[in-house]
Amino acid sequence: METLRWVGDRDGRIILIDQTKLPDRLVELSIEQLDELVAAIQRLSVRGAPAIGVAAAYGVCLATRGLSDAAEIQARLEVVFPFLDGARPTAVNLHHMVARMKQVASNHSELPGLALRDRLLDEARRIHQEDVELCLSIGEAGAALIPEGGRILTHCNAGALATAGQGTALSVLYAAHQQGRRFRVFADETRPLLQGARLIAWELKRTGIPVTVICDNAAGYFFGRGEVDLVITGADRIAANGDTANKIGTYGVACLAHQHGV
Amino acid sequence: METLRWVGDRDGRIILIDQTKLPDRLVELSIEQLDELVAAIQRLSVRGAPAIGVAAAYGVCLATRGLSDAAEIQARLEVVFPFLDGARPTAVNLHHMVARMKQVASNHSELPGLALRDRLLDEARRIHQEDVELCLSIGEAGAALIPEGGRILTHCNAGALATAGQGTALSVLYAAHQQGRRFRVFADETRPLLQGARLIAWELKRTGIPVTVICDNAAGYFFGRGEVDLVITGADRIAANGDTANKIGTYGVACLAHQHGV
Repeated sequence: METLRWVGDRDGRIILIDQTKLPDRLVELSIEQLDELVAAIQRLSVRGAPAIGVAAAYGVCLATRGLSDAAEIQARLEVVFPFLDGARPTAVNLHHMVARMKQVASNHSELPGLALRDRLLDEARRIHQEDVELCLSIGEAGAALIPEGGRILTHCNAGALATAGQGTALSVLYAAHQQGRRFRVFADETRPLLQGARLIAWELKRTGIPVTVICDNAAGYFFGRGEVDLVITGADRIAANGDTANKIGTYGVACLAHQHGV
Repeated sequence: METLRWVGDRDGRIILIDQTKLPDRLVELSIEQLDELVAAIQRLSVRGAPAIGVAAAYGVCLATRGLSDAAEIQARLEVVFPFLDGARPTAVNLHHMVARMKQVASNHSELPGLALRDRLLDEARRIHQEDVELCLSIGEAGAALIPEGGRILTHCNAGALATAGQGTALSVLYAAHQQGRRFRVFADETRPLLQGARLIAWELKRTGIPVTVICDNAAGYFFGRGEVDLVITGADRIAANGDTANKIGTYGVACLAHQHGV
């Protein structure tokens, strides 16, 4: 499973899983126009801050398809950067990756058109590869946190579908699973968009990790019975003091964990 | 609005709001057969412990429609009481009201058939009237708890639709509203069956009390911002020490209230 990928050379396209169709159907979208990509970001066909960041980097490449004149390319990019940047206000990776692509375009303004486009595609592929490696590193760093026989509560989706790799927070579960650890997951369904019921459950079932979807409001019941050993959630951002911003409901789960010594 | 009522004499029928159709449509079911009533209880067309208790009492009357021979009526009742009693295992009122009707049938075993049926219908009507009065008493007793300008969180539905009167816990809100108090309600949608989103919101809108439906997992957010002054939930049962049993999610709301000094 690949959340998204670039197919072809500088005139290629983005293939991405339409996450609005999961878990009923695994449908891939083939995207050749920037408008389509921005629409896909806005309707959450591609979501998760890292995945959106990678998609946006490739989006810069989509936007210059067919162009060969350097001045024309730079003129196009001047319009494209703010357009992409505004696709989703809460996705900080999006802003970072658009800024990074902008920097590359500016650093290489002396290049002929096609060479500049190749350089931009290289950068997007590097961003993609970095995301894959970051995900693996998170998994390796965190796998030891998962106890044998552990019962883990998740909220929202911070898995493979949120990234171009094997996930951020959920990568810890994948790494522990690959190391042969056995554990089970309670996935908060995560209203209103059901990222737990639709995406986490689908991802974990594919890998053979036992998962039970629960209503968000049932989490307290399992804490009360002492049946939650660990909570794993993503974080949109983490401040230097450890404060985090994340999906609605994360604070309530944190309160329950605190009150039950989890 | 009447959640349920008996229409006619001893050969009458039950009219009840089909709560599975709310809030899209206000549909009343006319029920003349005991089987239909038990099916309505099981699919939650009528729900809420008090409403089920009243419906079961009238159900005893339905079950003897058309009969006039005392021995035949008693023989029918012997089958009917356990059938009704098993309609919903968690509804304690159901068991209490079936036991009460059983006691009346036993106390009046000397009566001729039609007189016995009239006595049973009288008892069912008394049960109904007692529920109406209990609801009003709860409202009067609790109305002072609602502060002017208060922001009140609810979970599940303990309103008029759960009773034959104006509700149990929610009756407090209705009484405060009738006294001219102004306040607003956040209604947990209450997954999986959405009694908050479907039933509380519908009830409160009809009375003009401002209500905002929120995802269950968003309750913590409002507690964290100090925007919840009071929580009102029903209770299936309350033990002598104050412990309560109620709908899934109530414990999590209680933890949040405790942690935020609400």
